[in-house]
Amino acid sequence: MIFEGSEKKLEISFHQQLDLLSVEETVWESIVSKANATILSKCENDTMKAYLLSESSLFVWKNKLLLITCGQTSLICTVEEIARQFGQENISLLIYQRKNEYFSHLQPTSFFDDVKTLSNKFDGEAFRFGEMDEHHHFIFHTTSNYTPDTNDKTNELLLYGLSKEVSKTLTDSNLSALEIREYLNLDKILIDFIIDDFKFEPYGYSVNAIKEDKYFTIHITPQEDSSYISFETNIDLQDHIEALISKLKPSSYDFITFTPLGNNNDLEVKQVQLNGPIEFRKNVYKNLSCGYQMSVDSIYVNSKKNNQPRIISMEN
Amino acid sequence: MIFEGSEKKLEISFHQQLDLLSVEETVWESIVSKANATILSKCENDTMKAYLLSESSLFVWKNKLLLITCGQTSLICTVEEIARQFGQENISLLIYQRKNEYFSHLQPTSFFDDVKTLSNKFDGEAFRFGEMDEHHHFIFHTTSNYTPDTNDKTNELLLYGLSKEVSKTLTDSNLSALEIREYLNLDKILIDFIIDDFKFEPYGYSVNAIKEDKYFTIHITPQEDSSYISFETNIDLQDHIEALISKLKPSSYDFITFTPLGNNNDLEVKQVQLNGPIEFRKNVYKNLSCGYQMSVDSIYVNSKKNNQPRIISMEN
Repeated sequence: MIFEGSEKKLEISFHQQLDLLSVEETVWESIVSKANATILSKCENDTMKAYLLSESSLFVWKNKLLLITCGQTSLICTVEEIARQFGQENISLLIYQRKNEYFSHLQPTSFFDDVKTLSNKFDGEAFRFGEMDEHHHFIFHTTSNYTPDTNDKTNELLLYGLSKEVSKTLTDSNLSALEIREYLNLDKILIDFIIDDFKFEPYGYSVNAIKEDKYFTIHITPQEDSSYISFETNIDLQDHIEALISKLKPSSYDFITFTPLGNNNDLEVKQVQLNGPIEFRKNVYKNLSCGYQMSVDSIYVNSKKNNQPRIISMEN
Repeated sequence: MIFEGSEKKLEISFHQQLDLLSVEETVWESIVSKANATILSKCENDTMKAYLLSESSLFVWKNKLLLITCGQTSLICTVEEIARQFGQENISLLIYQRKNEYFSHLQPTSFFDDVKTLSNKFDGEAFRFGEMDEHHHFIFHTTSNYTPDTNDKTNELLLYGLSKEVSKTLTDSNLSALEIREYLNLDKILIDFIIDDFKFEPYGYSVNAIKEDKYFTIHITPQEDSSYISFETNIDLQDHIEALISKLKPSSYDFITFTPLGNNNDLEVKQVQLNGPIEFRKNVYKNLSCGYQMSVDSIYVNSKKNNQPRIISMEN
C-alpha cells in the first residue's frame, strides 16, 4: 500500500517572554489534531520535549517548536491554532517547508494553496529548490527581522527508493523496534541519547532521540511502492551519510542543510562531501533573508540499474 | 500562470467491420466533451481525420482513434462514451497512457484511479516506466490478443524546462502561428503535410499535421513556471531530435517509442542515438504483451546550470 512518506515541516520561533515548556499537554494535543495527527508518546529533558506522533514528530523548546508531519496530514491547519494559542504577535520567525510529494493527488492542499494561506497572515517569501521535474523542496519563511543563533544548524537526509532487500527486511511485520534500531546502527549515532521509538503495524517506524539541546528524528516508510526514510537532526549528519547510504541502498537521496548566515550575508555554500557512487548530483542553495543559508543536494546513486518498468496493481 | 502540459493519451483499435471515418462529427464532439475538451478545427485526407482540440488532439483512422488531452481534462471519462458509441465488443486494443504530472493536485483523477476504472471494463496490465522520483510514464493496455501492423511505429519527444530565452520568445503574445511554425522550422520536418494549427491567447500553440498515413502533433506550453513541449508522430523523430533540443534548450527531455514486436517477442531495445550534452540518461523498456515494445529514455541536458531556487509567487 502506498504511503506518502515525504514530510511537511513547520518551525516557529517566538519572542523571549514565552515558555513553551510549561504549556499544558492538552494544548499540544489540540495543535497536532488540526493536522489530523495524534500524540503517541513523549520524552523530555531540561531543554526540550519530543513528542512522537501518529505521523512524525513534534519538538518543543522554550521559545521554539518544530512540527513535522507526513502522509496526508494537513500541517498548514496547525498554523492558525498555534497563532491563536500563543499570539501571532509573539512569532519572530516561521518557516514552512514541503518536500516534493509523489502522491500529491492524495494531499488535502498543495504548497501553492498553503502559501496563499500563510501570506494572508504573514509577510514572507517562498521558493522552490530544484526543478519541478527533479527532486524539489518548497519553503516559505517570514521576512520579519530575525537573527538565528550561530549554532542553530540543522540537516536532513532523505532517502528515496530503498533497495528491494532493504525494503523486504523493513516490511517484515515481525521486526521489533529494537531490531530496527540495531539494523540502522543507531547506537553508534545516538550515544547517550534518550530514545523514544514506535514500530507501526504492519510496518513503518518512527524514532525521536534527544540529548541536551540535540534532537534526532527518523521516519521509515519501508514498502517498496513508496519507500522513503528521513533523518532530521541538529547534529552533523555528514559523518554518517556514507554508512547510511551503503546500508539502505536508496536509488537517490537529498541532503538539506540550514546554516546561520552570521554577520556577513555572503557565506559560500559548503557542499557536502560525498564518497561512493554518484551518477548525477545537483545543488541548489540560497542565503535566505531570514538569516539561514538553505542548501539542497540531490544525488542519484544507482538509478540506472533498474531498467524494467514497475507493475501497477489493479487494486492500488 | 501554471498549466499542466503533460498529456494523457488514449489509443483504441477496433475490429475491421467499423468505419470511424464515416462517423458523424457530433459523435466526436460528444466524445471529447466527456474529457471537458472541445473541437477547434479539423483537417483530413483519404486515410485520416485530425481534430485540433481546446486541449490537444484527436486523430481518427478507419479502425483506430488516438485521443490526446492535456491540462486538467478528464480523458478517462471518454472511454465509456467510446465504448457506448462503437460497442465495447468491437475494441481489439486499448492503450491508456499518462505522463507524469507536476501539478497533479489539480487533476480530476490519478492514474491509479483510472486503472481502477479501466480494469472494471477490460482485462489489462499496467506499468510505470521510470521511478516515482524521476520522469515516469504510466501505461495501461488491454491483454486481449492483438497483432499490430509491422509499420505501426510511433514516437514521442517531450521537452521539459525550456531555456528562459525560448520561454520568453514563445510567450510573446504578438507571436503568430506562422511565426511559431517558422521558429520551430516545421517546414523542414513537415514537407507536403496538411497543417492545421492554433495560437492560443495570450500564449500556447497546437498543431496537427497529416500526410497520407502519417501524423504529427505538437503542443506548446511556453510559460516559464511550467514550460513543456510535446511532439508525437508516426514519422521517425530520431533525425530531428538534435535540432529541436539545440533550438529549444530544455533542461531535460523524454523520448518514448512504440515499436511492433513482430513474430518473435525478443526484440532487443534499440536505444535512441543522442549527440550533444547529456548529464544523465535512463532507459526503461518492456516488450508489452499487446504486441509493442515500449521504450522510455529520460535525458537531463543542462539541469545543473540553474542552481538558484525559483521564487514562488504569493498569488500562484
